[in-house]
Amino acid sequence: MAENGGAALKGVRVVDLTQFEAGPSCTEALAWLGAEVVKVENPRGGDPGRLSSSEDGKTDAYYFLVFNANKKSITCNLKSEQGIDLVKKLVKKADVFIENFAPGVIDRLGLGYDVIKEINPKIIYAQVKGFAEGSPYEKFLSFDMIAQATGGIMSITGEADGMPLKPGPTLGDTGTGMLAAISILGALYQRKETGTGQRIQVAMQDAMLQYSRIAYSTQAATGKAADRAGAGTVTGGNAPMGLYPCKPGGRNDYVYVYVTRANNSHWHRLLKVIGREDLIDDERYDTPRKRAAVKPEVDALLIPWTQSHTKQEAMKALGEAGIPAGAVYDTMELHSDPSFEERGIFQHIDHPTRGDFKMAAWPVKMSDTDVKVAPAPLLGEHNESVLNDWLGLSADEVTNLKEDGAM
Amino acid sequence: MAENGGAALKGVRVVDLTQFEAGPSCTEALAWLGAEVVKVENPRGGDPGRLSSSEDGKTDAYYFLVFNANKKSITCNLKSEQGIDLVKKLVKKADVFIENFAPGVIDRLGLGYDVIKEINPKIIYAQVKGFAEGSPYEKFLSFDMIAQATGGIMSITGEADGMPLKPGPTLGDTGTGMLAAISILGALYQRKETGTGQRIQVAMQDAMLQYSRIAYSTQAATGKAADRAGAGTVTGGNAPMGLYPCKPGGRNDYVYVYVTRANNSHWHRLLKVIGREDLIDDERYDTPRKRAAVKPEVDALLIPWTQSHTKQEAMKALGEAGIPAGAVYDTMELHSDPSFEERGIFQHIDHPTRGDFKMAAWPVKMSDTDVKVAPAPLLGEHNESVLNDWLGLSADEVTNLKEDGAM
Repeated sequence: MAENGGAALKGVRVVDLTQFEAGPSCTEALAWLGAEVVKVENPRGGDPGRLSSSEDGKTDAYYFLVFNANKKSITCNLKSEQGIDLVKKLVKKADVFIENFAPGVIDRLGLGYDVIKEINPKIIYAQVKGFAEGSPYEKFLSFDMIAQATGGIMSITGEADGMPLKPGPTLGDTGTGMLAAISILGALYQRKETGTGQRIQVAMQDAMLQYSRIAYSTQAATGKAADRAGAGTVTGGNAPMGLYPCKPGGRNDYVYVYVTRANNSHWHRLLKVIGREDLIDDERYDTPRKRAAVKPEVDALLIPWTQSHTKQEAMKALGEAGIPAGAVYDTMELHSDPSFEERGIFQHIDHPTRGDFKMAAWPVKMSDTDVKVAPAPLLGEHNESVLNDWLGLSADEVTNLKEDGAM
Repeated sequence: MAENGGAALKGVRVVDLTQFEAGPSCTEALAWLGAEVVKVENPRGGDPGRLSSSEDGKTDAYYFLVFNANKKSITCNLKSEQGIDLVKKLVKKADVFIENFAPGVIDRLGLGYDVIKEINPKIIYAQVKGFAEGSPYEKFLSFDMIAQATGGIMSITGEADGMPLKPGPTLGDTGTGMLAAISILGALYQRKETGTGQRIQVAMQDAMLQYSRIAYSTQAATGKAADRAGAGTVTGGNAPMGLYPCKPGGRNDYVYVYVTRANNSHWHRLLKVIGREDLIDDERYDTPRKRAAVKPEVDALLIPWTQSHTKQEAMKALGEAGIPAGAVYDTMELHSDPSFEERGIFQHIDHPTRGDFKMAAWPVKMSDTDVKVAPAPLLGEHNESVLNDWLGLSADEVTNLKEDGAM
């Protein structure tokens, strides 16, 4: 991909005490960009994400691999004084420190912000929590779905007449991780000028607002909480708009069609594609407002056409005619689509214990940045190399630390 | 918020040709961090997002305000030679150029990457599209919902026995914008070392993979496309887990309860909270696997308790006992919650034509970065100041450009 650049974050060192997804997705973004991210993991199993979804209870799970590409791993026993001391020594050499432990844990470990900034005043100290400091829930545990419930996401997801639902994507985790990454990158850029570090804090509940601001815009217009709209949008008001059934009628055989409510351009194109030019001047449908008022009737004009095409055929015919339309693709269809592999969106990686597998890589193309794809590390894979490189420890010294139970 | 730092991206100039949400959410993130973002808008109405959701067709919509805080606006007629020339002059003084027009438009305008990098080799030239260059759909139009359909998101959202649904959040738009922001920030950091710019390209369809990788992990384990799971998760297998009804039974009166499948700790705490300590040693429920096998039975133990509490009471009782739990909050509840305002997550802004309103601000706390909250600009509000400041044009020269129809 890169023509002549190197890694964007060359030389940036991250001490990464995160686990599962919200934190690891953040540090992985930094690792795609070339930061040296060192996962600090407990010697007994490491990041719980390694094995919690493992098929055989021994091999690192695919779940772990996708959130930890390009990183290094060292083991460190945070229950031992020597282990904590080791983290502090690494911090002295690092640019970023990040953790997403349960509330209060990092302070109990003696690795709170006040301690770490004494050791390294230039450090960018980042924390990802379920609920924010100062929130009535600051001591509560959280997971992706708790963030999606309490952050308003579930209230706007589901059928119009149904109960709230959880979106499939892990917005509470990776959605939060991306905002942490943006803030850390901003702080790194700032530090180039000012030379000073800072503390960065993000809560998963709060981060949900960033992705649902359109719902607050609807609320501002109606004076009521935004509601669920099935496959439609919280703003509503377009016809046709939504999912239309395609042949052969499987679980995901639908095409999304979106016809603008700004004018009649898409509507006229659509009528041509479905062979109903006779309706172009029909007074019943000749404004977006009129169509929206009789949406079921408008939908009924479109459905016979969609049902006589596959979702791929429908998307192609509509897309080529300049109508926003998209097939509902499932994860297997996307994973098997050669276009994604050709373009480097999915990439093959050779993992030491899993062998070859395919995962989604950083989906942004950067012409002058070298975006590497190395497999997620085995537990403790970089014990010797990192401790030697960062701290100048010899192999014997590392062995001693292991024997002392520090790592 | 800031103790002693300034803006993170002080001095970074962005020429922003984006509109609606995917592009503007990206440049707004840069603007929160202190970049000088200049929206270049057409003189007749500007960014279509200004008025497309406007209540009265004249006042900038809340929709526009939430995606364009802290920015400046100048008008520029891209259909006039002088207008294009003006953009090129701005580009010479800029660090970042970004656009999210329909496919092919930017090249037809004569502002393609090859042209812009000739003018300013240090520029970071970013493009947000619906479908990627090289994709079979590269010429197709897209919107948030098209990205969510074609990027796999809808296939994993909905009831287990229902059709695909669109999550309420605008993952196709803001989700993509956040990845563009991360990449631009990486490129800016890299440029500090190398002095060279680059081209950044992200497609909304591709960006969806970043937020749904857990579904690919499920697929890797089962060999089948990940499926819909209602309020559950694509990984499944926990009991209790999901939404439980609370009093008084309104549309969003539910509490999410998540009990780990790693061990019995949450389960035992839960039994105590609901007054069923008698079941702690009950052999029917004494492993996560056994509970998952009789989930309806387990749910039935919990529901009488949740139904006799409000969602707030339930969340408090469960959260304080160390059980991951969260009330389903709607947008009005969150918008009215004083805690969000006290913590600066929602902020009041005084807008010249709308007056005081409250919007979600950058949800990440940065101790040493000055994160300003200025209202979205009026159309052309900064014509004179930007053209004077960046290009040294006098007020008369700006007037002449206007009279010539260039802006």
